[in-house]
Amino acid sequence: MKLQLLLTGNELMAGDTIDSNSAMIAELITNYGWRIDRKTTVGDDLPLLENQIRDLASDSDVLIINGGLGPTVDDMTSLALANATGNVITEHPDALTHLTQWCEQRGFRLNAANLKQTMLPKGCSIIANARGSAVGIKLKIGSCLVLATPGVPSELRTMMRDEIIPLLDAQFASDYIQTQRLAVFGLGESSIQEKVNTRYPDWPDDVELGFRASMPVLEVKLTTRGQNAGEKINEWRGKIIELIDDHLLGDMPLSLAQAVIAAAKAKNLSIGTAESCTGGRIAAELTGVAGSSTVFPGGIVSYSNAIKQQLLAVSESSLASDGAVSEVVVRQMAQGALLALGSDLVVAVTGIAGPDGGSEDKPVGTVWIAWGSQDDLRVKKFFLPVDRSLFQTLVTALGLDLLRRHILDIPGLPELMTRRKA
Amino acid sequence: MKLQLLLTGNELMAGDTIDSNSAMIAELITNYGWRIDRKTTVGDDLPLLENQIRDLASDSDVLIINGGLGPTVDDMTSLALANATGNVITEHPDALTHLTQWCEQRGFRLNAANLKQTMLPKGCSIIANARGSAVGIKLKIGSCLVLATPGVPSELRTMMRDEIIPLLDAQFASDYIQTQRLAVFGLGESSIQEKVNTRYPDWPDDVELGFRASMPVLEVKLTTRGQNAGEKINEWRGKIIELIDDHLLGDMPLSLAQAVIAAAKAKNLSIGTAESCTGGRIAAELTGVAGSSTVFPGGIVSYSNAIKQQLLAVSESSLASDGAVSEVVVRQMAQGALLALGSDLVVAVTGIAGPDGGSEDKPVGTVWIAWGSQDDLRVKKFFLPVDRSLFQTLVTALGLDLLRRHILDIPGLPELMTRRKA
Repeated sequence: MKLQLLLTGNELMAGDTIDSNSAMIAELITNYGWRIDRKTTVGDDLPLLENQIRDLASDSDVLIINGGLGPTVDDMTSLALANATGNVITEHPDALTHLTQWCEQRGFRLNAANLKQTMLPKGCSIIANARGSAVGIKLKIGSCLVLATPGVPSELRTMMRDEIIPLLDAQFASDYIQTQRLAVFGLGESSIQEKVNTRYPDWPDDVELGFRASMPVLEVKLTTRGQNAGEKINEWRGKIIELIDDHLLGDMPLSLAQAVIAAAKAKNLSIGTAESCTGGRIAAELTGVAGSSTVFPGGIVSYSNAIKQQLLAVSESSLASDGAVSEVVVRQMAQGALLALGSDLVVAVTGIAGPDGGSEDKPVGTVWIAWGSQDDLRVKKFFLPVDRSLFQTLVTALGLDLLRRHILDIPGLPELMTRRKA
Repeated sequence: MKLQLLLTGNELMAGDTIDSNSAMIAELITNYGWRIDRKTTVGDDLPLLENQIRDLASDSDVLIINGGLGPTVDDMTSLALANATGNVITEHPDALTHLTQWCEQRGFRLNAANLKQTMLPKGCSIIANARGSAVGIKLKIGSCLVLATPGVPSELRTMMRDEIIPLLDAQFASDYIQTQRLAVFGLGESSIQEKVNTRYPDWPDDVELGFRASMPVLEVKLTTRGQNAGEKINEWRGKIIELIDDHLLGDMPLSLAQAVIAAAKAKNLSIGTAESCTGGRIAAELTGVAGSSTVFPGGIVSYSNAIKQQLLAVSESSLASDGAVSEVVVRQMAQGALLALGSDLVVAVTGIAGPDGGSEDKPVGTVWIAWGSQDDLRVKKFFLPVDRSLFQTLVTALGLDLLRRHILDIPGLPELMTRRKA
């Protein structure tokens, strides 16, 4: 099956929107052993859109179009499809039924703009949209099956999974494919590649090794096809895991917070947080995990020195003598949090996120982290000279990984923190 | 100038990575009044990549290639460019110098995988990369200027801004263009479009109206070109702002948290937070804003009932009689936080994010929010039946917007919360 993807939207061409939809479509398609040959993206330009639809349809078995089904004037996929097939658009009864029911269920008033979404190319059939107002469009151009899908990610995902994948599965046999995705933190792409090159110069061509650097977790992906794909991938999965060592979090999808929650649950340990420079991010990551309430009683965001004193019993004299970003203060924050929150474990962070607040001896990017338990509290200083947003992301991730290593009794630090020369 | 964009990477075709780079490139290009005609994306397939480079170069004045300059085996842009121009790759002295210095500055050891990044097409020149190890590649294919850029977003952004835009600016005159971007919360795309259709059926074609739904903020974008673009856009900006009314946060880029911090600073008010179901997200949003320390002393994440009692003085009897998700408890949380944090204002939230924990009378999606000051504390229940992650995002945004409306003395709620029929 030759499958191509056409995305439309001025917001994509002008950079107003980051296209996450094509990745979602591609992941689903790939997981079924098909592949997307090419992605093409154009703006909301009717003639250009018509031409692209004609060109791509003449060169594909399947053309998936995404976007342009919405209620606004810049949504013109339906019209472009009609023009490309030499048809008019007309009110589609199934679309009208869907839209009316959709609004009913949600207690929304149907508005005029929405009604535009019922005007579809004559003779097409609709693809059900369980989550939104815009139905999908299905029609043939020559021998090419054309499927138009909505731009709203949650609607697209459901339509792909429940409608389009089964439809494709019924019509096109899929290759036998095996993929393994590993979640890694603290080990860089080039470090892993170098380990692989050194240890396995004979790495087989048919075991595809891919990396996805999605801050802060790195995804390492293995892909094999055809006979014995299963055995082969497990063999090489074992070898790569050996190289990744204690930087392995587990199988994707897995966040650092999920790994921490799972480890803590297994040992029946609770975790509290005391955050200054991360301002609640560590707590937010932990509570983003369903079921985290059994592990996470709560946390304190002590952004000001006053709150550090009042809620975490940090001593005024330490703040005066050593400053808020110091070993003594982060230690007091951690101990204060263990007391106030009554948790078995704690992570406390205080640092300088910038852009202001840096000094000669404490430049922006300096951060002290304390983690562990009452009896075994570790304290360390790190230096992450990056912009405010990335700094907060990295410190949050580092704090979570230090907890993970503590819970799992893993000695040492993530390699990214030790690669620097002494 | 006809400009096309070619993105490469198996991770893009397999959906492992969400492509934010093309949006970044497009936004810069668009802001200079140029446009990208088409974006094409292909995997790390050497012959396919070579062919696309040849095809696109023969049909463009400028071809910007993104990705495939990294240290790993799946990075093959340099080789593809060499093949497409009938050249070999060879160690480029400038690239080697750059890489050596880059590692020196960062105290990194130069590793073998990195060295691959110095092998460039014979006869090309490099484009400086101020932030990373991979230099860009500049060469001509026929009359087309080909520019290869790195995949790491921070490196790409700097290279585009400091190297490529000036280079294009020197060679190609840019149209006169005016854009206005408005940040809006609580008013949907279709509602705005309907207001526009009703109030301004004569909306001019040359004032392009675009929407970017980037949860939770909606960006409304106006674009005009040519003579008097300035006057025209300001005229229609005024009209659209009138329709958006109190849902307008300000000019993009602007987050809800930035709007809240700005409003609070202007009135010299401090804000504290007491979060249960949002688990620290509201605090994290506020502290994500540089300079937020003057407004935000801190917050308490009271995920468990025990912490609600100990740190926020929520009464055990209220928890027992009304439950943690109730009017009385959210009110006590807010009052407790005002006391514990000593802030002028507070926002407190307690709800059921799900997937578990729902009941007949308190289904998943139920949330109580209290906001305001000691003397003027508002409390309201909302129902947001969406998945856990979206629920936490929406409740965080809603809490921030309610604070914004309170500080600015705006009566009423965001329309999205009132559009439902009684």
